[in-house]
Amino acid sequence: MKVKLTEVPGSVVAPKGFRAAGVFCDIKRLGTGKGSEKGRKRDLALLVSDVPATAAGMFTTNQVCAAPVKVCLQRLRKGRAQAIVINSGNANACTGKQGLKDAFEMTAFTESALGLPPGSTLVGSTGRIGVALPMDHVRAGIIEAAVELGSTPAHAAQAAEAILTSDTRAKTVGLEFKVAGHTVRLGGMCKGAGMIQPAMSATGARPAALPLHATMLAFVTTDAAIDSRALQAALHEAVAASFNRITVDGDMSTNDTVLVLANGLSGAPRLRPDSEGFALFQAALDRVCLELAALIVRDGEGVSRFVTVRLAGAKTAADADAAARAVANSALVKTSWHGGDPNWGRIIDALGYSAALVVEGKVDIGYSAPGSSKVLWSLKRGQPTAATFKALCAAVAPREFDLHIRLNLGRAQALIYAADLTEEYVSFNKGDVADPTSLGG
Amino acid sequence: MKVKLTEVPGSVVAPKGFRAAGVFCDIKRLGTGKGSEKGRKRDLALLVSDVPATAAGMFTTNQVCAAPVKVCLQRLRKGRAQAIVINSGNANACTGKQGLKDAFEMTAFTESALGLPPGSTLVGSTGRIGVALPMDHVRAGIIEAAVELGSTPAHAAQAAEAILTSDTRAKTVGLEFKVAGHTVRLGGMCKGAGMIQPAMSATGARPAALPLHATMLAFVTTDAAIDSRALQAALHEAVAASFNRITVDGDMSTNDTVLVLANGLSGAPRLRPDSEGFALFQAALDRVCLELAALIVRDGEGVSRFVTVRLAGAKTAADADAAARAVANSALVKTSWHGGDPNWGRIIDALGYSAALVVEGKVDIGYSAPGSSKVLWSLKRGQPTAATFKALCAAVAPREFDLHIRLNLGRAQALIYAADLTEEYVSFNKGDVADPTSLGG
Repeated sequence: MKVKLTEVPGSVVAPKGFRAAGVFCDIKRLGTGKGSEKGRKRDLALLVSDVPATAAGMFTTNQVCAAPVKVCLQRLRKGRAQAIVINSGNANACTGKQGLKDAFEMTAFTESALGLPPGSTLVGSTGRIGVALPMDHVRAGIIEAAVELGSTPAHAAQAAEAILTSDTRAKTVGLEFKVAGHTVRLGGMCKGAGMIQPAMSATGARPAALPLHATMLAFVTTDAAIDSRALQAALHEAVAASFNRITVDGDMSTNDTVLVLANGLSGAPRLRPDSEGFALFQAALDRVCLELAALIVRDGEGVSRFVTVRLAGAKTAADADAAARAVANSALVKTSWHGGDPNWGRIIDALGYSAALVVEGKVDIGYSAPGSSKVLWSLKRGQPTAATFKALCAAVAPREFDLHIRLNLGRAQALIYAADLTEEYVSFNKGDVADPTSLGG
Repeated sequence: MKVKLTEVPGSVVAPKGFRAAGVFCDIKRLGTGKGSEKGRKRDLALLVSDVPATAAGMFTTNQVCAAPVKVCLQRLRKGRAQAIVINSGNANACTGKQGLKDAFEMTAFTESALGLPPGSTLVGSTGRIGVALPMDHVRAGIIEAAVELGSTPAHAAQAAEAILTSDTRAKTVGLEFKVAGHTVRLGGMCKGAGMIQPAMSATGARPAALPLHATMLAFVTTDAAIDSRALQAALHEAVAASFNRITVDGDMSTNDTVLVLANGLSGAPRLRPDSEGFALFQAALDRVCLELAALIVRDGEGVSRFVTVRLAGAKTAADADAAARAVANSALVKTSWHGGDPNWGRIIDALGYSAALVVEGKVDIGYSAPGSSKVLWSLKRGQPTAATFKALCAAVAPREFDLHIRLNLGRAQALIYAADLTEEYVSFNKGDVADPTSLGG
């Protein structure tokens, strides 16, 4: 099916009936003295629908999961919500009973500030692990944000800024499509940067086939009318092909969260599964999630290269995934990408130690421009090709390229969006021990 | 049993009846022109017993394994050998049929140069993957080494230098113990630096319980008299507690190899399993392997910190290993070690995404000086202790410390010797694309 998706401005407020705000409430307790201006980035966001919406979510499968994730898991059981409150600077993870109490308090205070019914607000947090939230600051922030709420692109931009941690830029997307003469819109914003290899499920329970490992938060709004079950299924499919296919550093966060609110205000008919409208919506949601996921990798901590690992010919789907991730997470492969070194020896080494079945004499390894089928093969059936070292260097010199791997043992495929490993990543993450508020999750 | 082991000089020639040599034969084809002096490190070693010896080995479980590993696997079936030829600068991995032919030719040429019977020589290689060995250089090197062979500490030192790649220093050990009035000696040398997380087995087959991931080569000599089966069993036990417990970067090499030759020239009676002498030998072999393994981590590429991860209280042995390795291989945990940051949030995050069962509210995390039982706990039962940030920083400031993790779910334990991740590691491994001879395996 050919789907026509049109980009629109406004990200999370592009769909009808959504308002957003982002404010600074000093969650990291930087104080307001001299010299703290640099750190005064917005750190609390609100996202609100004018009417109750259907809601769906996907969450980290880390066994150590943050309090806001636990609250969302509980609230999504009824598949409805109207607002989301999000803070950066503090992950509210490993904060015990107090943390859970604080996460519930964030939602309850938001509901009371906005005059929403109890249980209608979801919550997300990102930042330092193991530190209690400064709830006086959080409450002040929620009140300010509730006052600031609006539906202009500037409001959306402030919200998108407020959820960032070590990100260098805001990440947003907005799309629309037509169905039965009506325009339906989707908008999204996310944050990433480090601790990025999500493996999310709808329940937080670890699926057997899913591999492991980000703090990434993503929030999607739409004015489509859709049942919560259909929305959850659509989100599951979209996340499987986007956020769950990225890795920056192979570390899975305690806080990974994707939430969608669908408020039905587009005026288009309800999207029933198996309808053309639903297929269009799925395509649009897939595109929103994939664009946001790619933005996370491109803005990963210290990232200088974006590599799409295209693995084919594995014996099983699990093998395909294991082989692609072994390559995408190998420190030696990632440093060679950083150096522009077409070191296929490290790639076949990583394939060989992966959990996947690999036969040295069958492996093909090559490179292409992003999305191109014109591959320069460096290895065919386990043996170096006639491709010159200079030509291979040229193939891996661009900031973005595709790595093609064929195991030639079966028909299973996997796609991983990966990043290189740079000195900047190490410098950033070795932290500043003079600043115990540096980020954790 | 209290075992008295005494350090002795001479490493691999400390035991009676062994000779060694290390020469430069330009395996990387640097040429002999101006400016190549810097690269003229010795690159070919010979290790020879005066009499046929029993032999045992452990090898990489990477499915992509180098030609020299295949040759050793075949030759060790009869459990006897008299010489080992080793080159650095070229791994002879992913070199197909030519590579296998070259590995056999290395052994055959050594046998003919030394007048040894066919099939009596083992082989090891390390360096760039996927490049054919310059056999004319190798043959010239073997002839020169055969002429140079000797049993002085200087000879052993030259051999230990010849096997190095990105290592900054030679790694050797020598020990003796007394049994029934006789002195028995063991000597060893090894190389490591990058691609270090070995998981070796005697057959190259991957044991289900063994996790994955170094090029490390280690060669041990002893004048003990011992059957090959008993020697293989002793080596298996020693490697399980040493080389298979280390990780530098989580990448398992195509070439990992540990070889032992036991020539029986000590004059001590044959060491039968269950004898006191065998127990003494096992203790000595354990110590030799552990000292060499620790030297590999301390001299890992760019390594500035050596951390012993002591995990206890896991439900199963596989859980203990998976949890300890998830922490030891987490990019975020390793960079925080580099920065001297006691970031327990990243540690519990890694535990949570490991394959091991972990319950957040039961986890203890603390630090001690190496080998000390005086632990400063940062987390108890999932909650931060009263330990100050300053005190925790002081605990992780030394170049070497122990990280104690208790899952409090069972009785299984695991020990991993780990390193930090530094800017120097990245700089070194991003490679110099102007130098396609930079190392690979």
